Amino acid sequence: MKQEKLTTRSENYSEWYNQVILRAELADYAPVRGCMVVRPYGWALWENIQSQLDARFKATGHVNAAFPLLIPMSFLEKEKQHVEGFAPELAVVTHGGGQELEEPLVVRPTSETIIGHMYAKWIKSYRDLPVLINQWGNVVRWEMRTRLFLRTLEFFWQEGHTAHATYEEAEEETMRMINIYADFAHNEAAVPVIPGRKSESEKFAGALRSYTIEAMMGDKKALQSGTSHNLAQNFSTAFDIKFSDENNELQYAWTTSWGVSTRFIGAIIMTHGDDQGLVFPPRIAPIQIVIIPIFRSDDEKALVMPIVEQLQKDLTQFRIKVDDRTEVTPGFKFNDWEMRGVPLRLEIGPKDVEKQHMMAARRDIPGREGKTTMSFENNTEQISALLDDIQSALLAKAIAFRDDNIHDPADYNEMKSVVESGWAYSFWCGDAACEEKIKEDTKATIRCIPFDQSKEHGQCIVCGKDAEEKAYISRAY
Amino acid sequence: MKQEKLTTRSENYSEWYNQVILRAELADYAPVRGCMVVRPYGWALWENIQSQLDARFKATGHVNAAFPLLIPMSFLEKEKQHVEGFAPELAVVTHGGGQELEEPLVVRPTSETIIGHMYAKWIKSYRDLPVLINQWGNVVRWEMRTRLFLRTLEFFWQEGHTAHATYEEAEEETMRMINIYADFAHNEAAVPVIPGRKSESEKFAGALRSYTIEAMMGDKKALQSGTSHNLAQNFSTAFDIKFSDENNELQYAWTTSWGVSTRFIGAIIMTHGDDQGLVFPPRIAPIQIVIIPIFRSDDEKALVMPIVEQLQKDLTQFRIKVDDRTEVTPGFKFNDWEMRGVPLRLEIGPKDVEKQHMMAARRDIPGREGKTTMSFENNTEQISALLDDIQSALLAKAIAFRDDNIHDPADYNEMKSVVESGWAYSFWCGDAACEEKIKEDTKATIRCIPFDQSKEHGQCIVCGKDAEEKAYISRAY
Repeated sequence: MKQEKLTTRSENYSEWYNQVILRAELADYAPVRGCMVVRPYGWALWENIQSQLDARFKATGHVNAAFPLLIPMSFLEKEKQHVEGFAPELAVVTHGGGQELEEPLVVRPTSETIIGHMYAKWIKSYRDLPVLINQWGNVVRWEMRTRLFLRTLEFFWQEGHTAHATYEEAEEETMRMINIYADFAHNEAAVPVIPGRKSESEKFAGALRSYTIEAMMGDKKALQSGTSHNLAQNFSTAFDIKFSDENNELQYAWTTSWGVSTRFIGAIIMTHGDDQGLVFPPRIAPIQIVIIPIFRSDDEKALVMPIVEQLQKDLTQFRIKVDDRTEVTPGFKFNDWEMRGVPLRLEIGPKDVEKQHMMAARRDIPGREGKTTMSFENNTEQISALLDDIQSALLAKAIAFRDDNIHDPADYNEMKSVVESGWAYSFWCGDAACEEKIKEDTKATIRCIPFDQSKEHGQCIVCGKDAEEKAYISRAY
Repeated sequence: MKQEKLTTRSENYSEWYNQVILRAELADYAPVRGCMVVRPYGWALWENIQSQLDARFKATGHVNAAFPLLIPMSFLEKEKQHVEGFAPELAVVTHGGGQELEEPLVVRPTSETIIGHMYAKWIKSYRDLPVLINQWGNVVRWEMRTRLFLRTLEFFWQEGHTAHATYEEAEEETMRMINIYADFAHNEAAVPVIPGRKSESEKFAGALRSYTIEAMMGDKKALQSGTSHNLAQNFSTAFDIKFSDENNELQYAWTTSWGVSTRFIGAIIMTHGDDQGLVFPPRIAPIQIVIIPIFRSDDEKALVMPIVEQLQKDLTQFRIKVDDRTEVTPGFKFNDWEMRGVPLRLEIGPKDVEKQHMMAARRDIPGREGKTTMSFENNTEQISALLDDIQSALLAKAIAFRDDNIHDPADYNEMKSVVESGWAYSFWCGDAACEEKIKEDTKATIRCIPFDQSKEHGQCIVCGKDAEEKAYISRAY
């Protein structure tokens, strides 16, 4: 078996990205343009993401349900901004059971409309509120330029849809969920996202306000990695979601929606990956530990394998893989599992057995520096500690990289050069004209107005007028 | 709040079925004909089914992945029987992104074709085999007559797709999976299915052989509750799934597919439900225990609620719900949770607190007989034992009902009357003409030829010729 070298990130970042995904077997191209197959290794990563997010949703009172894939075309037309936003991206079913349909059905691009329709049926009284439902599923958006995980015709996600009695509760929910996303990203995926508000031009079609978590990729572009929308009464008015309040008066409900998709896998790849391939944070890695038995004869095998088998039994609390392939060399296996991003490798050869230890190699620290010997005793504690350390190190490294590449340009000219390779963090007056000018001049966009900022005033980086808030500006996926 | 009485099963079984689903909020009708919304209570049941099945799949070496929703029409046409079987049921996407597509795409009715296409790309050598992949997802079949859970345009399921080096391995896998389904059905859902082989006319479109688990519903009709197909080399030939064997010769792979869907929820409802509503086996019940605090004054509340809160803390190992609604009476709550099928109800009022016990009411035994007092001490053990007992009792009851309604008719005339309300277990010569005659005369079909049968010969119940095998014959959903 030959092991081709990956294109390096500096040679061609986008080629590196595609190569690691295909070679590590995270995903593959489907026969329909722009669609992907998520392969078992990629899906195991998604399952880990799902279980971490799902636990957070359930702990905050949310429940899961399943709404239909097919939505009558007329539903989308009920909310004006919504249909304008999604009409160009729709996949349309015109025939069913051999007959042309009376009304075409769209394959859901998102489910606000169909869920709004059901909520109108279910919600009668303030006692029915809040409704806190999430759905794990697939959606289709007819994108023109696609990239594995980042932008595909069909993608997988969760979409939460909630209804509340008051504006305040809906706003609180919208904030709660973006904070849950940020917490998940930091603590599980070691992706140091910045949460903030989207500008008016970047908000969700039909939302009053959209919040986002923005992550910096290895090429210093931004990736929107999750969003939470306060829909105010826009959808409840369009779909007639009304409840009688405590005074028996009819009110429109206040709704929200929020989602994280398989795009987040792209964020993980491009936050942590290096020229050897993927690097997965232990808490979400599909495989946390790979064990490589090393032997050249049957005698050596008889020495090594019982130890490996015992280890496998001892380490069941971890997601573990023993690579016992005989058709490739240990060296091949080292490279292979490095490329696949497994956080920790344990090597055991006959000499290690003699010395009653094994070699532990960290994925995040290349070469000798990342290697330590580890005794066979108390290994679960040692390994737990090591995995925790890898997790923290990855987060610290990503934070340092992000902060090193956020700049505070003195003027518009400096900003223009800064966003060619990094983010600008600058005052913005809030004017759409200034936002548009940035886009035209630099291809960078306003990624978010972060929640966490001081209350000083300053001058808009574009027009120089008084500005109350700073925004992150960068090129983005 | 009013509490309408359910239609009884004997009055109108099908009306009873729809009512329990809608009132218990398991599912609702979607705005598109034949589609359903699975509501949170129903989805929680499905999640429990998923986690039990998924654990069994993973324990037998299977991994999950996700294949695309949209399949080129031409793919379906590659396997002749397959396209004949599915062509009448397809939903077709003809437009995407505002343009008419060059080739129409079908919304997957099942994924053998697209997965076959990918396997052809991935499988090169015998070392790549077996491939053991499962997918949890949604599919669409344009059914004319639909029923909630039993037959809907869109439904949710898992579909396993495996590829093997030999016929024997594929056959072993096909059997392994039908046995896993049977084990799950018996031990988790308390649904005493009968596993067996489908007749040639009832097998999956494109399969060499199909295995099934058949369950008897409360109206004595059969429900096919899961299937496993040996696809031989039919799909590998159509999709060119070839591998080089140990002698470096190219061979077509042997493939299988197997699935259980949200239809299984129908099986659970109609196996255990009674005139009070749903009855869920504890091991898969969305809520295992409901606690009803009973008080009429603030003083009584102050006595009762601390005990209830303590219980809630003690019983976290169970799926538990405290019904603290104030707008309805305890009596209303009893009926409500009985209707929703919660296996165990705990009632705690001021007198119970005085006596340091609570009332435990089993859902499976109505009235006083199902009630016992339970001390506050060691309650997790007591409750575990009680839930286990309920689980076993439900299975025993379902087995007794099934066996009481399986008949051994002496001749064809008796068979005809037997299948009006029950199953016949009779010799069948294997001839399609006899099978067809049964269908025409009685609307009953051959449900399966069970694996577990003695090797005697007998006379075909239709034509009287020598027959080697017995089959279950009944009307079915």
